[in-house]
Amino acid sequence: MLEQLKKEVYEANMLLSKYKLTTFTWGNVSGIDRKHGLIVLKPGGVAVEDITLDDMVVVNMQGLKVEGKSQPTTDTLTHIELYRAFPFINGIAHSHARWCTIFSQMGLGIPALGTTHADYFHGEIPCTRKLRAYEIRGDYERETGSVIVERFQKGKLDPEEMPGALVCNHGPYTWGRSPKEAVNYSVVMEEVAFMAWHCMALPDRYLVPMQKDLLERHFSRRHNKNRLKNQIDTDTNLS
Amino acid sequence: MLEQLKKEVYEANMLLSKYKLTTFTWGNVSGIDRKHGLIVLKPGGVAVEDITLDDMVVVNMQGLKVEGKSQPTTDTLTHIELYRAFPFINGIAHSHARWCTIFSQMGLGIPALGTTHADYFHGEIPCTRKLRAYEIRGDYERETGSVIVERFQKGKLDPEEMPGALVCNHGPYTWGRSPKEAVNYSVVMEEVAFMAWHCMALPDRYLVPMQKDLLERHFSRRHNKNRLKNQIDTDTNLS
Amino acid sequence: MLEQLKKEVYEANMLLSKYKLTTFTWGNVSGIDRKHGLIVLKPGGVAVEDITLDDMVVVNMQGLKVEGKSQPTTDTLTHIELYRAFPFINGIAHSHARWCTIFSQMGLGIPALGTTHADYFHGEIPCTRKLRAYEIRGDYERETGSVIVERFQKGKLDPEEMPGALVCNHGPYTWGRSPKEAVNYSVVMEEVAFMAWHCMALPDRYLVPMQKDLLERHFSRRHNKNRLKNQIDTDTNLS
Amino acid sequence: MLEQLKKEVYEANMLLSKYKLTTFTWGNVSGIDRKHGLIVLKPGGVAVEDITLDDMVVVNMQGLKVEGKSQPTTDTLTHIELYRAFPFINGIAHSHARWCTIFSQMGLGIPALGTTHADYFHGEIPCTRKLRAYEIRGDYERETGSVIVERFQKGKLDPEEMPGALVCNHGPYTWGRSPKEAVNYSVVMEEVAFMAWHCMALPDRYLVPMQKDLLERHFSRRHNKNRLKNQIDTDTNLS
Repeated sequence: MLEQLKKEVYEANMLLSKYKLTTFTWGNVSGIDRKHGLIVLKPGGVAVEDITLDDMVVVNMQGLKVEGKSQPTTDTLTHIELYRAFPFINGIAHSHARWCTIFSQMGLGIPALGTTHADYFHGEIPCTRKLRAYEIRGDYERETGSVIVERFQKGKLDPEEMPGALVCNHGPYTWGRSPKEAVNYSVVMEEVAFMAWHCMALPDRYLVPMQKDLLERHFSRRHNKNRLKNQIDTDTNLS
Repeated sequence: MLEQLKKEVYEANMLLSKYKLTTFTWGNVSGIDRKHGLIVLKPGGVAVEDITLDDMVVVNMQGLKVEGKSQPTTDTLTHIELYRAFPFINGIAHSHARWCTIFSQMGLGIPALGTTHADYFHGEIPCTRKLRAYEIRGDYERETGSVIVERFQKGKLDPEEMPGALVCNHGPYTWGRSPKEAVNYSVVMEEVAFMAWHCMALPDRYLVPMQKDLLERHFSRRHNKNRLKNQIDTDTNLS
Repeated sequence: MLEQLKKEVYEANMLLSKYKLTTFTWGNVSGIDRKHGLIVLKPGGVAVEDITLDDMVVVNMQGLKVEGKSQPTTDTLTHIELYRAFPFINGIAHSHARWCTIFSQMGLGIPALGTTHADYFHGEIPCTRKLRAYEIRGDYERETGSVIVERFQKGKLDPEEMPGALVCNHGPYTWGRSPKEAVNYSVVMEEVAFMAWHCMALPDRYLVPMQKDLLERHFSRRHNKNRLKNQIDTDTNLS
Repeated sequence: MLEQLKKEVYEANMLLSKYKLTTFTWGNVSGIDRKHGLIVLKPGGVAVEDITLDDMVVVNMQGLKVEGKSQPTTDTLTHIELYRAFPFINGIAHSHARWCTIFSQMGLGIPALGTTHADYFHGEIPCTRKLRAYEIRGDYERETGSVIVERFQKGKLDPEEMPGALVCNHGPYTWGRSPKEAVNYSVVMEEVAFMAWHCMALPDRYLVPMQKDLLERHFSRRHNKNRLKNQIDTDTNLS
């Protein structure tokens, strides 16, 4: 079942590995079939680079396995929580990519400091609050998703314009219209995290976020909204 | 048309990718045929590593496409602005290379701290001022070129001796007598940006720019001007 | 003799090299046959990447060579000291991996700042005290092991839950139920050292270690103890 | 002439490139035939990775070319100055390796903070004073060598125990009993520079150099002097 989606999810997991965003089992990409309410996930306990197309696992929106030899990734309930809350997204990527995880561990969002950032993320990339003790002891994986959703509601953030978030003390999640797009946003987030960290690390530096106009210009230029005059740009696909 | 120049521009784009200065679509190299007033550019919306010789686009000095299947890079008008202002240059490279972009995001020039820098850049590599709101909302890509030109005029900088600049909150541009030379300067600028950042990052360090004499000696040694006695050096080509 | 163990130790040494944790001769992995009280070690004076299966050396618990063309690694007595004190471990890895060595050189433990850390190490990874002059001048390699053991005793640390330590001014040791597992812990320790350093390096940052509950949840989740409800996780093998 | 030495020098230059210590033309290794007073050098103006065995140049102790198609490296007179002052050395390596060059640009020596350092360098790796204007304008390349020699004389340093130095605002030189050994010391110096920088960069850190006893123990252990009891070590070759 869902052979096409399994292939997409498998290839997106491979992409995560190709871009060196994973070590061992630390990362996974999923995709959803909205029509049937079924999700394809990476199996748990296997290094990303070692999985095969055959290992893909299918679960329903309750997290119950529908097909697959192995159990799905530990993070399954987090993925489900995001698919529920953000109805337009069809792919999710999670990793412990170094630079994003550093921001997660500092409990800091990634500030928008340049056009590379503005081309993909419409402002500071948010970091969630810390999970509370009862959330950790309770339905932990589901709460990890909920705390992202809560952050978007409180911050009035639009998940279409902000295709990712950092989970405090944990690592990044990104999403998109497809599993591949979700991975691409992970690549970009890692790159802007790297650059932001080094802007923030110089001593005696007063960090001024980029001008709002420049942020708007780059974000809208790439996203084809409110397109401005004098543009030759056809550079509208993600990568 | 311009088959030789297309080949040079194509190969220089490949070089940008080989030196790992690009991710996805973030970077492009162009070349100009001064006699006919025609510019060869990378197409927009394609990752640098994925382009073919066939994809090269030709535009005139007004930015109108003369030949090519695709639209040229979004940054076309920036390239044109630089070709207009700096009549000796025949190639331009742009990227979001990590370390140069970090300096761009900090709005800081790259100070001349050692002989590696002095061999190629005659002093601090300048960073432009921030673009103003009306420049961003208006003819943005052209203004991006103008603000570089303005920085050279105000700073009385010679674009032959300072073959590159940082655009504030954006990234580096470099240029040269050929597309390949432009890329080589990008490689060097990234390297000296890396080293300068780490000199500036140590706490409690008082940074003293290198001696002016040392800067002059190395720059002139490599550039064959005012050649001094006792030199065995034939090391005059760029790389 | 011990052909199977020699193969495991050889392959674990190759893994150390594959993960780029060694330069030249700086690193070695050993394994123990508890039944016969014999240890297989990398030979000294050979780069890790250059050894062959044939080079493996066997010593007894007194450090006397039982089999092998070469002398075993200089660090042999350190390995023996750890095998003596920690009876459950069957493999040990040592390296001068960059980020762990940086913490060793600073005399600092690696704080637990995120779930990547908590999945493998049950709290801050300890750094030993400095060796004293008479320890250095005396039975130096053995004392290097003793100072690790002392740190665990004084800190009431459980070597099963804390599968590694930093030797002050020197570098990391890790251990596990097999030589391969020991290397895997070295890979993880290097990764969490990298991320912890960058969390600690930002100026004006007040570092709060992760919540104890989150540490417990991730450590126990992976280690199959006190497994909590709602878990789909089968992610219980090390990597 | 000197076919064996040319081969050694050629291969040592290749090694410099293999260890990624060079970009473009920034680096060179030489070797000396003490009996005939002849030096084999890399040609100038060619990227290290592009040279062939045939390109090697032979000069005499006055710097005059004796054999070779091209001119020797610009740095020829620096090499000669070091061969003159340090009669036991037979190979010299120079590069603009990133981390060593950062220390050169800061005008700082590399402090001895751990055993990796102590295994190869007997204390802090010295950085020269800045060159004076008349030295730069005059016999610049020779003065670059002289300022290293001066640093060793003033600091009462033994070039056999301290096989390298940093030239202020420039980069590292290392030497050894052969061209290959000189390159190996460059590899080690780059590694300890990397680690020292990161020990020095953490805010609020009070850096204590390693204990003198530990320095002595590791340096003498590897260098076969004053060998101490209880050692199994045969780890006496450089790498």
